[in-house]
Amino acid sequence: MRGRTDLAVEMKEDIQDDEPITGVHVLTKNNGDTDIHEVRIIVENEEGAMRLGKPVGTYITLESEHLREHDEGIHEPMMEVLSHHLKEFIGPKRRIMVAGLGNRDVTPDALGPYVVDHLYVTRHLLEEGIISKSIEVSAIAPGVMAQTGMESSVILHALAREIRPDLLIVIDALAARESDRLGKTIQIADTGIIPGSGVGNHRNAINEETIGIPVLAIGVPTVIAVPTIVNDAMDVMVTALGKQSTRNILKKFSEEERYQLACEMVTPYLENMFVTPKDVDESVKRISFTISEAINRAALA
Amino acid sequence: MRGRTDLAVEMKEDIQDDEPITGVHVLTKNNGDTDIHEVRIIVENEEGAMRLGKPVGTYITLESEHLREHDEGIHEPMMEVLSHHLKEFIGPKRRIMVAGLGNRDVTPDALGPYVVDHLYVTRHLLEEGIISKSIEVSAIAPGVMAQTGMESSVILHALAREIRPDLLIVIDALAARESDRLGKTIQIADTGIIPGSGVGNHRNAINEETIGIPVLAIGVPTVIAVPTIVNDAMDVMVTALGKQSTRNILKKFSEEERYQLACEMVTPYLENMFVTPKDVDESVKRISFTISEAINRAALA
Amino acid sequence: MRGRTDLAVEMKEDIQDDEPITGVHVLTKNNGDTDIHEVRIIVENEEGAMRLGKPVGTYITLESEHLREHDEGIHEPMMEVLSHHLKEFIGPKRRIMVAGLGNRDVTPDALGPYVVDHLYVTRHLLEEGIISKSIEVSAIAPGVMAQTGMESSVILHALAREIRPDLLIVIDALAARESDRLGKTIQIADTGIIPGSGVGNHRNAINEETIGIPVLAIGVPTVIAVPTIVNDAMDVMVTALGKQSTRNILKKFSEEERYQLACEMVTPYLENMFVTPKDVDESVKRISFTISEAINRAALA
Amino acid sequence: MRGRTDLAVEMKEDIQDDEPITGVHVLTKNNGDTDIHEVRIIVENEEGAMRLGKPVGTYITLESEHLREHDEGIHEPMMEVLSHHLKEFIGPKRRIMVAGLGNRDVTPDALGPYVVDHLYVTRHLLEEGIISKSIEVSAIAPGVMAQTGMESSVILHALAREIRPDLLIVIDALAARESDRLGKTIQIADTGIIPGSGVGNHRNAINEETIGIPVLAIGVPTVIAVPTIVNDAMDVMVTALGKQSTRNILKKFSEEERYQLACEMVTPYLENMFVTPKDVDESVKRISFTISEAINRAALA
Repeated sequence: MRGRTDLAVEMKEDIQDDEPITGVHVLTKNNGDTDIHEVRIIVENEEGAMRLGKPVGTYITLESEHLREHDEGIHEPMMEVLSHHLKEFIGPKRRIMVAGLGNRDVTPDALGPYVVDHLYVTRHLLEEGIISKSIEVSAIAPGVMAQTGMESSVILHALAREIRPDLLIVIDALAARESDRLGKTIQIADTGIIPGSGVGNHRNAINEETIGIPVLAIGVPTVIAVPTIVNDAMDVMVTALGKQSTRNILKKFSEEERYQLACEMVTPYLENMFVTPKDVDESVKRISFTISEAINRAALA
Repeated sequence: MRGRTDLAVEMKEDIQDDEPITGVHVLTKNNGDTDIHEVRIIVENEEGAMRLGKPVGTYITLESEHLREHDEGIHEPMMEVLSHHLKEFIGPKRRIMVAGLGNRDVTPDALGPYVVDHLYVTRHLLEEGIISKSIEVSAIAPGVMAQTGMESSVILHALAREIRPDLLIVIDALAARESDRLGKTIQIADTGIIPGSGVGNHRNAINEETIGIPVLAIGVPTVIAVPTIVNDAMDVMVTALGKQSTRNILKKFSEEERYQLACEMVTPYLENMFVTPKDVDESVKRISFTISEAINRAALA
Repeated sequence: MRGRTDLAVEMKEDIQDDEPITGVHVLTKNNGDTDIHEVRIIVENEEGAMRLGKPVGTYITLESEHLREHDEGIHEPMMEVLSHHLKEFIGPKRRIMVAGLGNRDVTPDALGPYVVDHLYVTRHLLEEGIISKSIEVSAIAPGVMAQTGMESSVILHALAREIRPDLLIVIDALAARESDRLGKTIQIADTGIIPGSGVGNHRNAINEETIGIPVLAIGVPTVIAVPTIVNDAMDVMVTALGKQSTRNILKKFSEEERYQLACEMVTPYLENMFVTPKDVDESVKRISFTISEAINRAALA
Repeated sequence: MRGRTDLAVEMKEDIQDDEPITGVHVLTKNNGDTDIHEVRIIVENEEGAMRLGKPVGTYITLESEHLREHDEGIHEPMMEVLSHHLKEFIGPKRRIMVAGLGNRDVTPDALGPYVVDHLYVTRHLLEEGIISKSIEVSAIAPGVMAQTGMESSVILHALAREIRPDLLIVIDALAARESDRLGKTIQIADTGIIPGSGVGNHRNAINEETIGIPVLAIGVPTVIAVPTIVNDAMDVMVTALGKQSTRNILKKFSEEERYQLACEMVTPYLENMFVTPKDVDESVKRISFTISEAINRAALA
């Protein structure tokens, strides 16, 4: 493990780039004449899950250089590709709840609440008979535990039990390992959200097990964990130090030991800090808009 | 009825100012050397409820001219008086949930969400053993039905069932009849919130009946309904018209018919518009801060 | 005068709908297969200005029912029509400053700041040589006098003197008389902004006279003045009163006297309050986005 | 230099902690029975400026552990100490302009705009004769260059030329080197703001030279530069590597070379990223409130 990441596509890169991984299928695709690159990672069984460090399920990553460059032109095609995938996941389901996770007051964490701000919710309109031909969409931006005193999973479980949707879509800001991925990547996963290593049981997970209905997660990486940066810096440093002897010393450390070392180096910053781009406000605003429009369109079908 | 109001103190004024109302007790008080005027209205039984148009319970109104004038000096005494009343209502209860109702994006309706923004929530800290001596406080700003597709009462019922607090405190912006009351009044009611006339059963009420636990409501008037203004204007108009004959015509209308008339006059504006002061942003910010501090202090006890 | 309005199209309606007004040309147009209705009012000379109550210049009003209904599909065509008009006004000018007037914290007044939030500013990119083929765009959201202690006209005069743009585009929320116009109308005026009656000299005007460069104003009605509503209500009332005698009394009042009467009726609300739709947040967000995109596109040319 | 910092108190620590620096006076003080620690650094002449890397002037740092812990009780004493220092700097001046620098949409950069939000501006009230006994306060939150296309120094120069205040107070978020200083430190400097090394001429500086009037800067560290963290990590790493030989290699690098090395290590993150605490929203809200109240109080005198 070379540093915390929420992206399946980065976890795959950890293992080996070329050889196939047992229990993990990888499909890549370019979308027509757009620059939207798509990677679909299917974790087929528990062996694949252990190897990748992600639960059994499907992970789709959409990437576009234009997304990062705040290019207006990418909104429409990215929205369509995303909407197309959402429709597939939704299938015949008729009642959707969307949860915009994160803290509205901390810019890189505001993605989820911003998506909810732009959603076209229909549950009340259908109930009141104002509209008739739409998937039922309800939505909530529950806030973070420091604001509510409650785990998001607890809030969403309570609402799912009361409202009885067929599908929960959770939107959340993610951590990436490569700074190059920030602001240009959207990940869709039918496994929900599992904090930490992503394998095993977790009381704070937001998935079918804890919520009681299928959970689709849409995430966008907006931050990098602090140890990731130090870890990255190490290779450069070792090369700079230059001496064969030093490189030999570092070789004694396994990948995991080196990450552990990086964590120790940044202890004071570790738990309570993150690294984020200076233009994160612009990224989060634009991508949240693209995601909410994609959900709006998928719900019309 | 002279126009919609959420304030018990204004509903009382409708009836008659001096004579006692069967089933309704009124107590007034000035708080020490502050200018905080306090009116306590106790609706003792169903007869009182029918007469006042408010359910059985206690309604406390705190008013201060300094509050409207954005006078810094009033924050501390108002916070203390409010906190004192909250403590009384809380009594021996140990688990409180606070719900900030309203739409964060429409200034006069943002009071509830702003209060939640400044709350010191403790539920997670107590669970994790980080603190030990505090009342348990959890909080949610659920948003409005146009954003969520769900009634606030449904969301709060779901959360109360899951979290099991002993008391729900709901914060909401109110409508007043007198423009003079905007921005200087805080109402506390142990009856919760009942939309509309306030008497009878309501599926959208947020009270002990619908939520399953006692509900305390803290409200601040920030808007006036459009027909109220037209209604007010009528007396002035009739005087201006001057003729005895006209006054006689208007006399034929009962209070209720006149309000009905006012409603008809403003039909295009009626349902979807409100009247609000231009400095409502400043009022809402300051009073929300006072309320959250009062809750924080009451929870420390 | 039937109530305060910032819309030329409503001032024209005051006079008479059918007969031509000396010095005022009116052209109407429908835009292709969209529902965008366009009214162009040209005030040709001082006589026209006196009659209409608006300075000499061109006023274009774009209206679409779909705009009010938050119909996604209208964004693109409305943006294109607006962009087309902006290009005409910009002509060969190469340096534009955009000023988003209003108070970001009061929803119906936040139009201007929101437009600036979404603008693609280029002045610094051109100066640093990062881009080369664009009109120079700078922007400011100066805030309102209660926040800055300075008239917007003073701030903009200072910046225009320093930055030397060829054209100032000011964006501002407007007052309409008809509630039906809120949220569905965009007005473009090459006269800038003149508070009050709009004729004569004004120290707080933002126009070529006070700023020193041509000023184009883009406005959207988001509020109605309180007396307007009372005034509207009067006709309904008189009819309701029914008696010939009453109607005769009202006939004695001129249009202006009646408006004066309406003002007196609502004295307590008059100066410091406004009427606005409950979904004003959604309107302001969407239309501000359409306007900023239209400016972005016009600046590319 | 061990990493970028905007704090004079950290630049002093770079040199040596105990020996006196020629041309630099350091005075420390504890404020009564509060925990507010005060360091006053006076750079007396150019020699001191060269050594410290900060222009000639006075730098006061106020620090309190309670500030970081969001302890309510610290607001009042910190506000008073800050207000006291502001009054000294203001002296007999009667016209103040306050500029809240930074990007309102990026949480750690929002300090300046938030301070302006809470200021009591008086310039217009004095001009209109509504109040008479106050220092004249005007204010602006100009936004950042990516939003305006204009340097803040250019905007403030334009406004100072137009409004003619006697003193400009600029509020800005700062970078610290020690994570321990974030959220608990306020720096006041009578030198204004000079980006970069802080010595020499800078076109983007905001100081008496560029603005034409004295400039007082109030800053709060809310971020750490990425290379700072890597640099810090290096010592830990070298110790971890353990070998004498490695330590010898690192010894060959001067302080400056090591920082250069750290910069190279984090090249991809360097320019466009920052490190910030997860609770930065709470810090920025509370400290901005303390600063605006301190200015409000200082202006009353």
